[in-house]
Amino acid sequence: MTQELTVQLAGTKREKPDQANLGFGRIFTDHMFMMDYTEGQGWHDARIVPYQPIALDPSAMVFHYGQTVFEGMKAYLTKEGRVFLFRPEKNMERLNRSNERLCIPQIDGDYAIEGLKKLIDIDREWIPTAEGTSLYVRPFIIATEPFLGVAPAKNYTFMIIMSPVGLYYKEGIAPVKILVENDFVRAVKGGTGEAKTGGNYAASLKGQEIASEKNYSQVLWLDGVERKYIEEVGSMNVFFKIDGEVITPELNGSILHGVTRDSVIQLLKHWNIPVAERRISMDEVAEAYRNGKLEEAFGTGTAAIISPIGEFLWNDEKMVLNGGKTGELSKRIYDTITSIQKGAQKDEFGWITEVPVSK
Amino acid sequence: MTQELTVQLAGTKREKPDQANLGFGRIFTDHMFMMDYTEGQGWHDARIVPYQPIALDPSAMVFHYGQTVFEGMKAYLTKEGRVFLFRPEKNMERLNRSNERLCIPQIDGDYAIEGLKKLIDIDREWIPTAEGTSLYVRPFIIATEPFLGVAPAKNYTFMIIMSPVGLYYKEGIAPVKILVENDFVRAVKGGTGEAKTGGNYAASLKGQEIASEKNYSQVLWLDGVERKYIEEVGSMNVFFKIDGEVITPELNGSILHGVTRDSVIQLLKHWNIPVAERRISMDEVAEAYRNGKLEEAFGTGTAAIISPIGEFLWNDEKMVLNGGKTGELSKRIYDTITSIQKGAQKDEFGWITEVPVSK
Repeated sequence: MTQELTVQLAGTKREKPDQANLGFGRIFTDHMFMMDYTEGQGWHDARIVPYQPIALDPSAMVFHYGQTVFEGMKAYLTKEGRVFLFRPEKNMERLNRSNERLCIPQIDGDYAIEGLKKLIDIDREWIPTAEGTSLYVRPFIIATEPFLGVAPAKNYTFMIIMSPVGLYYKEGIAPVKILVENDFVRAVKGGTGEAKTGGNYAASLKGQEIASEKNYSQVLWLDGVERKYIEEVGSMNVFFKIDGEVITPELNGSILHGVTRDSVIQLLKHWNIPVAERRISMDEVAEAYRNGKLEEAFGTGTAAIISPIGEFLWNDEKMVLNGGKTGELSKRIYDTITSIQKGAQKDEFGWITEVPVSK
Repeated sequence: MTQELTVQLAGTKREKPDQANLGFGRIFTDHMFMMDYTEGQGWHDARIVPYQPIALDPSAMVFHYGQTVFEGMKAYLTKEGRVFLFRPEKNMERLNRSNERLCIPQIDGDYAIEGLKKLIDIDREWIPTAEGTSLYVRPFIIATEPFLGVAPAKNYTFMIIMSPVGLYYKEGIAPVKILVENDFVRAVKGGTGEAKTGGNYAASLKGQEIASEKNYSQVLWLDGVERKYIEEVGSMNVFFKIDGEVITPELNGSILHGVTRDSVIQLLKHWNIPVAERRISMDEVAEAYRNGKLEEAFGTGTAAIISPIGEFLWNDEKMVLNGGKTGELSKRIYDTITSIQKGAQKDEFGWITEVPVSK
């Protein structure tokens, strides 16, 4: 894909938000990236334009048949004023795997990263500087064809929007309380659980709502077949430290290939901490807890990086981990990854892509 | 809900399409119904406006997290020029069940039907008259809140759009060839299969695409747990006539509560034809076929009404039903339901709601 990228700058720049109250995903930068797909023509009209509403026919397929995929990544400002992206190529690879599952045409990941770099460069001053803040980047693709038939669409729009964000959970790195979900299922093998598509998140809302009512932050999802094996926590991958070994569910077809998940595994190996990707049941976790061997548990994802788990409720059994405090390993991983992301620690893994300053 | 319905008529009316080439879901009438939901305020601003694009923030949650529900129903013009809706109250009940699963606020179904009647009355001349045609009605709700967090939205828009349609399958009532899907899964108990939400349809596209490549019209979906029991066919419910008895999968939590499904069951009971709602495996169907007892099979849905199945391919076994021709019972059901819908046959079941002519 060697198409030209056109740039239309916003006439006026909006006021930057108060960095102490960024929240997550409610404030957007001055510009966005777009390109369109038309069957027979491919992706075309790549452009950076002022952030603005998009107009779609009410019959646009995204409104009816959920043919959407998205990604989430972050850009960070270093102390030296450099801008770092964390493993953007992994996100674009995953976007294309999601595209494959959802029958959406492949994008050129390298071209999208070039477009993203340009977009970030233009909105560079939107990257917040306060502790724990970053610029959240949301690439997504929607089916825009105006047609009420159930079939892959012939038209799509790919967009990248960006939002300066604080911590995803108000609690920050503080541990969260998790409800183990027995009734609702997030995904099943053969379904779309491995893809980053709207329907998985829509399916998760009800369990999440019930957990919130019971004062739990997130849901621990079990597998849809046997309702025994652990899949994800909220919209994150999940790790357990049991008797010195770190275990995370293997990628079985219904679990998201998390970029943070992969980074955590690499880090653990680098530190010579035993780590296993395998099936793990809630019974095993509870048994370990009862024997005093469940040392830590945490979720991983781009938004929160590491979200330590302070408590599980499974049926009537309440399991409090680590006295409800953040575990040592969770903290060490969080500090290391965020330090690399912010350029405070050397990147030994080739995870960082710098956003160059335009001439 | 006793809110006022405002009406803004289109300045110019668009040209009506050629009734011989309506297709399905590509042409829309002059007007649409909309109302908005705001947390704390409820549903408000019910209005009929000219059919037009809608503008949404790129962060509108529908684009990211698939929080959508929809319905499908049809309006028919009788020979006498009366306009009939087929069981619209069932669709609104189901829409609210879908809303419940997707954490979308309930709508007042009666009010929505009143709005729909008014909308149809205004666009009455869009209802096609040719054999096999009707006015397809698509109510849907989308999450419009501009927010990138995974949570139920605080803002929604409910819309009804309408499309004059011909037959859903070009083949009409002609039998279709069905591929039994072993790899992909449409839904699983605890998921969203029972709800009419975008994600289910997005999940179905890949299996459908593979079937099309092999020259099969639709996919027969098996259950997501044991991969043995029959769930749906394409986006329809499915019925089998085996040795004089009609069997359809029971509503188990992952199967849509089809309005046509329910109507077919009522009809069969009325005709004293044995009908059972129970679990039925693909093994049982194949066994019946091998023994010469699989007499007919057909899908049911609003779009196609009855779609006879002429052939199954399951692994390497090809099963040709009824010499690939439409079965007697399929035809009888199709003729009866469409006759009631078109007012050519007395409605003994209370299925018809007439759209009154405004004063």
